[in-house]
Formats: sequence, C-alpha cells, structure tokens
Amino acid sequence: MTRRPARAYHHGDLRRELLASARQLLEEGGPAALTLREAARRVGVAAPSAYHYFANLEGMAAVLAEEGFVDLAAALEAAPTDTQGRLAPAGNAYLAWARGNTGLYRLMFGESHAGVGASGAVRIQRARVHALLVSGLHRRLPEGDVPVAALFSWSLVHGLAMLLIDGQAGPGAAAMVPDVFRLAARGLPLGPVADAAEGG
Amino acid sequence: MTRRPARAYHHGDLRRELLASARQLLEEGGPAALTLREAARRVGVAAPSAYHYFANLEGMAAVLAEEGFVDLAAALEAAPTDTQGRLAPAGNAYLAWARGNTGLYRLMFGESHAGVGASGAVRIQRARVHALLVSGLHRRLPEGDVPVAALFSWSLVHGLAMLLIDGQAGPGAAAMVPDVFRLAARGLPLGPVADAAEGG
Repeated sequence: MTRRPARAYHHGDLRRELLASARQLLEEGGPAALTLREAARRVGVAAPSAYHYFANLEGMAAVLAEEGFVDLAAALEAAPTDTQGRLAPAGNAYLAWARGNTGLYRLMFGESHAGVGASGAVRIQRARVHALLVSGLHRRLPEGDVPVAALFSWSLVHGLAMLLIDGQAGPGAAAMVPDVFRLAARGLPLGPVADAAEGG
Repeated sequence: MTRRPARAYHHGDLRRELLASARQLLEEGGPAALTLREAARRVGVAAPSAYHYFANLEGMAAVLAEEGFVDLAAALEAAPTDTQGRLAPAGNAYLAWARGNTGLYRLMFGESHAGVGASGAVRIQRARVHALLVSGLHRRLPEGDVPVAALFSWSLVHGLAMLLIDGQAGPGAAAMVPDVFRLAARGLPLGPVADAAEGG
C-alpha cells in the first residue's frame, strides 16, 4: 500500500517490477484480482506507464503465464532423478511449485484469462514442461506407451494440485499424496462389486 | 440480446429464469462473465429484481455451484454400474458432464468466485458427489484403502476434465481417455531409467 515517489527506471527494471507486483496480486486475490492499474499503482507509477510494457491486461497475463511455465520447468528440472524409476520426486516438485504459486498456477491454466492458453509464447513454455514429462517417461517405458502415460501422469498431478489448492479435497489430503503416487504405480485393480460377487 | 417486456412472475419462476440465464453466461464467457445485472437483463428485468432473489453476485454463484454438484451427482447416479468393477463408466459420465458444462464446472471449483467453496450448501452437495465415489469404492476395496483410492480417482478425473476443458492436453487427448482409465487400473510401474540400467 505504500506509494513510492515517481523515479526514473532503466528499461527492463520497471517491466520486472510490474511483473513482480502482478504476481503479488495473483497470490493475494487470484487471477480475477489482476489489473494493470493496480500492478502499476503498487510500484508507484501511473497506469499509462504500464501500457508502455504491456499492450493490455491480457498481454500482461500471457507474460505472467509464460514465466510461470518457465519457473515450473526449472522446478521439475531441479527435482532429484529417481533411478528406481519412481516419478514421485517429479510429482512432488510439481505439487510444491503449484501450491507455492497458487494464483499464478490457476492463471497458467486459463482462470479468468481465457486468452492465456492461446498465446504462442505460453504454448511454447507449456510444451517444454510437457516435454520434460515425456522425456522422463521415454527413459522408462516403451515408446508406444508414452502418450497415454503422459496424459495419465499430468492429469493426476494437475487434478491433485487443483484439489489441494482449492481445499476441496479436505484437510487430510496433502498427507495422502505419497500414497496416491504409490497407488498410481501399482494401479487400482478393482475387484467385482460386492453385490455381484455375492450373487455368483 | 432480445429484451422482453417486463411481466409479472410467479415467485420461483423468475428465480429459475435468472439461474438459467446465469448458466448461459457461464457457458458463453466462463465464470468471470457472470454478473447479476446481465443475468437480469437477459430475462428482461432490471437488476434490483435479481437482488430480490440473491443477496449479491457471490450468493448467486453459490446457488449455481450447488445446483452444479446436484446435476453432477445425478449424472454419476445415472451411469451404468459395471459389475466387473471397472470405474470407467462413472469416470466417463463425470467427464461428459464436465465437458458439457465447462463454465459451471470451473465455477464449482472456485474459478473467479473463491467464496463458492466456503458456502455450506455447496459443501453439502460436493460432499454428496464425493460420497458417491467413496461408496462405489467401498463395494470394491478393503475399507482402509478407500480414502487414498478416492483421492486418486477424483484427482485423475478432475485433472483430465480440466485439461480437456482448457484444451491444454492437445487435440488427441479425448481419444486417449479409455486408455488412461485402463492405465489407472493397471498402474504405471515404471522400470529403472535406461541410463541407470545401462550403468548396472
């Protein structure tokens, strides 16, 4: 809420400060709270200065989402490789990043800013995250199994992330994550339903 | 865009028409496009009439989310029971409902209206959907395995739904869903990574 005096910025510095301020807005109020005007106000400049760097709100949202996928990729690359083949270290790194950047994570998946998904720059960085997942699977699975395994893994970890972020999965959910990853490896081979089994 | 002449409504009729108009807004523009004013305008009444039925926008959003979970529960209950124990019929019913009501589905998980998740009425209906999932698993698994299996199943299907809705999973993803459900049953028992295997 403090208002800094106007000052001269080097090109690049103000853009960076605006993005940092926008990320704060995202984490405080979610994607719907993002405005160029408020991001500018918080770094002590008038809204028109922000329009010097971003064509409009959607332009800023796309840059934020692009940066988000870059950060997420870095977090996944920094995760320890599990030579036993378990993907849990990467899964845990993904979840930790999503839970540490909930507003940005939701923005990256189009919340309140549907145009983000159509940005070419965002697509490129999202594809890089997907490629990391695919290359991890390629080292462990026959080639033909990789696309389905990638969609399975990404869906599971994205769904977990969203349910944990929303608090929809209940208070005990976070503690169950290691068991969920073990179950993903083992599978959920359901038996016949009890009624049917009793019948024959 | 047509503006109907003002007319007398029976109590309940206008509320229902406002909710139907709000669901149209959700499907056209996503949760961020929802406003009481526009929902009222579309049924040909002034905004204050809408405030007669809903305290504010968040109140209307909560009623919509509550109705969404009721509808989703009905869709799951209508899915065929698979006596072989496969959960794919329920999974398919869940995905079909989410993909047919994308704006409402996103609203139900808090998009642009974070307060929705805290509404008591929404929690009750969401818990009912969760109870359907749990009861399906109870008939097929030892009691102790149910909570983790429920979180696994819900995360997988929620993540799939969101990636399909967003179009983030790519054009071929919908066709892979049956294989993803088969993989969920079989598990993803990854072997050691190729590099490590070569090393020893």
